[in-house]
Amino acid sequence: MTGFVSLVGAGPGDPELLTLKAVRRLQEADLILHDALVSQEILALAPRARRFFVGKRANRPSMEQETINRLLIRAARRGERVVRLKCGDPFVLGRGGEEGLALAAEGIAFEVVPGISSAVAAPALAGIPVTHRGKASAFLVVSGHAEKTWRPILEGLAPGSVTLVILMGLGNREALSAFLQSRGWTAETPVAVLLNASHPDGSNWFGTLSTLATTDAPAQTPDAAGIIVVGDVVSLAPQLQSQQPPQQETAQLTFRAAHPS
Amino acid sequence: MTGFVSLVGAGPGDPELLTLKAVRRLQEADLILHDALVSQEILALAPRARRFFVGKRANRPSMEQETINRLLIRAARRGERVVRLKCGDPFVLGRGGEEGLALAAEGIAFEVVPGISSAVAAPALAGIPVTHRGKASAFLVVSGHAEKTWRPILEGLAPGSVTLVILMGLGNREALSAFLQSRGWTAETPVAVLLNASHPDGSNWFGTLSTLATTDAPAQTPDAAGIIVVGDVVSLAPQLQSQQPPQQETAQLTFRAAHPS
Repeated sequence: MTGFVSLVGAGPGDPELLTLKAVRRLQEADLILHDALVSQEILALAPRARRFFVGKRANRPSMEQETINRLLIRAARRGERVVRLKCGDPFVLGRGGEEGLALAAEGIAFEVVPGISSAVAAPALAGIPVTHRGKASAFLVVSGHAEKTWRPILEGLAPGSVTLVILMGLGNREALSAFLQSRGWTAETPVAVLLNASHPDGSNWFGTLSTLATTDAPAQTPDAAGIIVVGDVVSLAPQLQSQQPPQQETAQLTFRAAHPS
Repeated sequence: MTGFVSLVGAGPGDPELLTLKAVRRLQEADLILHDALVSQEILALAPRARRFFVGKRANRPSMEQETINRLLIRAARRGERVVRLKCGDPFVLGRGGEEGLALAAEGIAFEVVPGISSAVAAPALAGIPVTHRGKASAFLVVSGHAEKTWRPILEGLAPGSVTLVILMGLGNREALSAFLQSRGWTAETPVAVLLNASHPDGSNWFGTLSTLATTDAPAQTPDAAGIIVVGDVVSLAPQLQSQQPPQQETAQLTFRAAHPS
């Protein structure tokens, strides 16, 4: 019996945005180590697995990455099928690479199962295409957590040349607004702040680079996965809002185990 | 009876990387308009829909965007459930925004169903995390198709500050290599070229910014969805290769219609 670790992307939150492969891995799992923002609905897809919360929450003591790595390795050595379930995509600002390297160093077999990254999906669900002909043919996804990290990245960027998607930047929204304006981005550049995209309690705020710095914009909240989008594409949101499809009776689907164990 | 259009991301190619929502929309569809790179296996998930190929292929006459928009609108007006099935994610260099605007202008109800973008998934499946602590805390996704578009975007970027993910750039690989080196990126910067990621015939090439310009690197092929990744994170690929999970008997899943029509 050989253990195996799957680093699985859970997508932005809505269970419907899981991939078929992710659901399969959840159903096969013996053990799931999951992040804070993974919903109960998603975890319910793994009826036979033991589940541990190993996530990081703002302002609370969090489990060390070392400890998570050790849990993964130990379970795989016992021969278990382990799912490391991460918000969005494991390789987009998710430390999935570090976990993979730790497993590789111990000779543990593993795989990456890509997930829908909220860097693209949160804007899309708010009606914002990260690229759009005549407005943006590139987008930059950047961590807004540490100013010393994002400053040199945003420094030389031609103002308005790309759509900026800033993750974990809500706490620095004033500094980001001031810095971009100092680099030539206009105060009127459209900006959106997207909170808990694809969750039932999600909400979107629309403003400009200058109003982003005011109290009008949402502030950091402990568990809100807030995403800041900066660029002309934000102005398309009123026209590109997704609507609910009409209910259909003919093709309600269920996802069933053919051989429940 | 009200028609409805879903702009659906089909992911990078592997049917297992479809979302549950995408599969649901395919099963409910009356009509599917699909791109070139969407596989027969994926189309087979839509047994009751009429299907039209409306994709663009390099070096072949392609259907005008206008015509595609008109087909979407006409079918929705007839009351049909229409799926516009696009490779990757509809809003990542996919003209999904333009189709949404055309629908909105005619008052047709529509939604966006995000898909796994190969901009992130192709690197991941090749063992490349687009972000990684100490190597890159940002990535830029850019169209490499037209030099006049990517030049001003890449111009001011601090060399090595972000991972570059260049879509549709294989035909310009010499120009890209020369330009980045002229902007201070070192000749030894690791580079990967990823062809047909997640397809059975996919292949990866690894080199550097200088060898990217030589005949050693894959050239443009008509239907290959080639992605160029530039940055230090590429050097992690040998350690972060995904492996096949061991076969499991207990949880073979099938996707069934509860009320087949």
